[in-house]
Amino acid sequence: MSITTIERAWARLSAMDDVLILTHSAPDGDAVGSAFALCLALRQRGKRVSVHTDRLPASLAFTAVETEDFEPRHVVTVDVGDKKLLPEGDRERYGDRVDLNIDHHGTNVLFAGETLLDPGAAAASEVLFDLFEYGGIELTKEIATRLYVGVSTDTGCFKYSNTTPKTLRCAARLLEAGVDNGALNIELFDTKTPEYVAFEREAMNSLSLHFGGRAALMVITQQMYRDAQIEEADTQGINGLPRTIAGVYAGLTVKEKADGVFHASVRTKAPVIASEICAAFGGGGHPYAAGCELGPDLEKAKEMLLSAAKASLEKYGLL
Amino acid sequence: MSITTIERAWARLSAMDDVLILTHSAPDGDAVGSAFALCLALRQRGKRVSVHTDRLPASLAFTAVETEDFEPRHVVTVDVGDKKLLPEGDRERYGDRVDLNIDHHGTNVLFAGETLLDPGAAAASEVLFDLFEYGGIELTKEIATRLYVGVSTDTGCFKYSNTTPKTLRCAARLLEAGVDNGALNIELFDTKTPEYVAFEREAMNSLSLHFGGRAALMVITQQMYRDAQIEEADTQGINGLPRTIAGVYAGLTVKEKADGVFHASVRTKAPVIASEICAAFGGGGHPYAAGCELGPDLEKAKEMLLSAAKASLEKYGLL
Repeated sequence: MSITTIERAWARLSAMDDVLILTHSAPDGDAVGSAFALCLALRQRGKRVSVHTDRLPASLAFTAVETEDFEPRHVVTVDVGDKKLLPEGDRERYGDRVDLNIDHHGTNVLFAGETLLDPGAAAASEVLFDLFEYGGIELTKEIATRLYVGVSTDTGCFKYSNTTPKTLRCAARLLEAGVDNGALNIELFDTKTPEYVAFEREAMNSLSLHFGGRAALMVITQQMYRDAQIEEADTQGINGLPRTIAGVYAGLTVKEKADGVFHASVRTKAPVIASEICAAFGGGGHPYAAGCELGPDLEKAKEMLLSAAKASLEKYGLL
Repeated sequence: MSITTIERAWARLSAMDDVLILTHSAPDGDAVGSAFALCLALRQRGKRVSVHTDRLPASLAFTAVETEDFEPRHVVTVDVGDKKLLPEGDRERYGDRVDLNIDHHGTNVLFAGETLLDPGAAAASEVLFDLFEYGGIELTKEIATRLYVGVSTDTGCFKYSNTTPKTLRCAARLLEAGVDNGALNIELFDTKTPEYVAFEREAMNSLSLHFGGRAALMVITQQMYRDAQIEEADTQGINGLPRTIAGVYAGLTVKEKADGVFHASVRTKAPVIASEICAAFGGGGHPYAAGCELGPDLEKAKEMLLSAAKASLEKYGLL
């Protein structure tokens, strides 16, 4: 249960064989990009390697590589902050015998034998990039493309504040290794399913501005998921919408969960603090992205959230 | 009327004083970022410098620096491929006496006395970055922020295929110079006016899928601009919407112009070629983004465009 260095992590990996690679459940671009890139890198060293993941989102299916069935002698995880986040079956079977975890979450609980952790890295794929460079792995187009998927998706294509100079230089090297970034970015960042487009349209129709345009409120109901024939899990991106409106400091989304209870997702811009708004209802989160529970009555939920947002806008002199 | 090198361009700039900087009309992020960055860099060398531009988009107003009134002895343009693109008054007064033009458009017609041209650069700001580095300009936060605005907006925040390894390394250096990229990117890439949101909602309501989801058609009328109280010029981004739908190879937008004539904007994905679809109606453009005129009858315009798109989808084996 210790933190390790790139040098020691590479020595550990080099000594392994019959390696199983795991990542967190409901895998995102960084999870699958990292897992399959590591798989290809270790195979380059002649090792037998396999990857287990939950079902991949359709847009990331192309990152998968063929796997083999064998009894693993070593288990490596990537992009996993806590063993609780492993997919169910894998969690029971392998959760307590992870030899090495490669991650970038500052909140990592160090559940693995050794953890290579760089909380300054934008993505686990950025940590792997450093590791491969140290280990002299040839950066093939196949490996570079998977690392690019990881780094670009975790930074919103280099848009979020976690993008550092080092992230950009890592991406520069990946492009030099042959990544077709233009076409890939269209697939990763400019493609929505027809179902999502229909859902987004309904979500936009529910948008209302409040307090002179300082707050925007959106309402998502279970009926809207059914109407658009979309899974709730495939609609997470919608939470960002209210804050995209110019002049809005408090972007509010009220969402009906499957049990009929309404939850709030709050995104703010400085100086307004999202976690303060949600704390009023026992919720919390990050300074500019937080959540809380508001109860089963929609009208009351909207009223409660708007009044907390109003108080916050007043506190920061925006009303 | 000749191409020049970074060395000679810097020598020219160093010998100038009382410099007027101009850029193209309807200025975008690269135009204003480049113009004001160059202004600050030359002032760092103790020169009297001013910038003339058309009215800036509100989201870019923060890039402006105070200007002075004086009779210019030298005129420098940035991001201008042709003197026809200068704002009207400036074009007549200065179009034939531009000493130096700094640009990245491969189509540049070399109208200036000397032209520093790097068609491989993603933005004029990327050319300026090289020039400042050669000239030993101190990369202050103010200068770096303006160059970042130029480079990031011309690449869609490093998303488009014009983003090269060099672009990313340039951006890395700008971040090191203190650019607050996270907050800036929210303003540049994740902010829409309430009017645009209302307009986009109506545009989405007009979307229809055709040919098994291989084509998507959107219709924009003059009435929609009026309803949303938005200028047509502030809605250019909407053209990309139909192609964002998964499975769509031909994204079609039919737009009514102020004179009542319908035009098409076509965005495609490989292998479908947008300029081929538009060529059928005497239009043209780039392989994946093209346009043409379709006449004053909306139903006929839709029918013509859909049938040309169908022929193209068939040609490439997608139907």
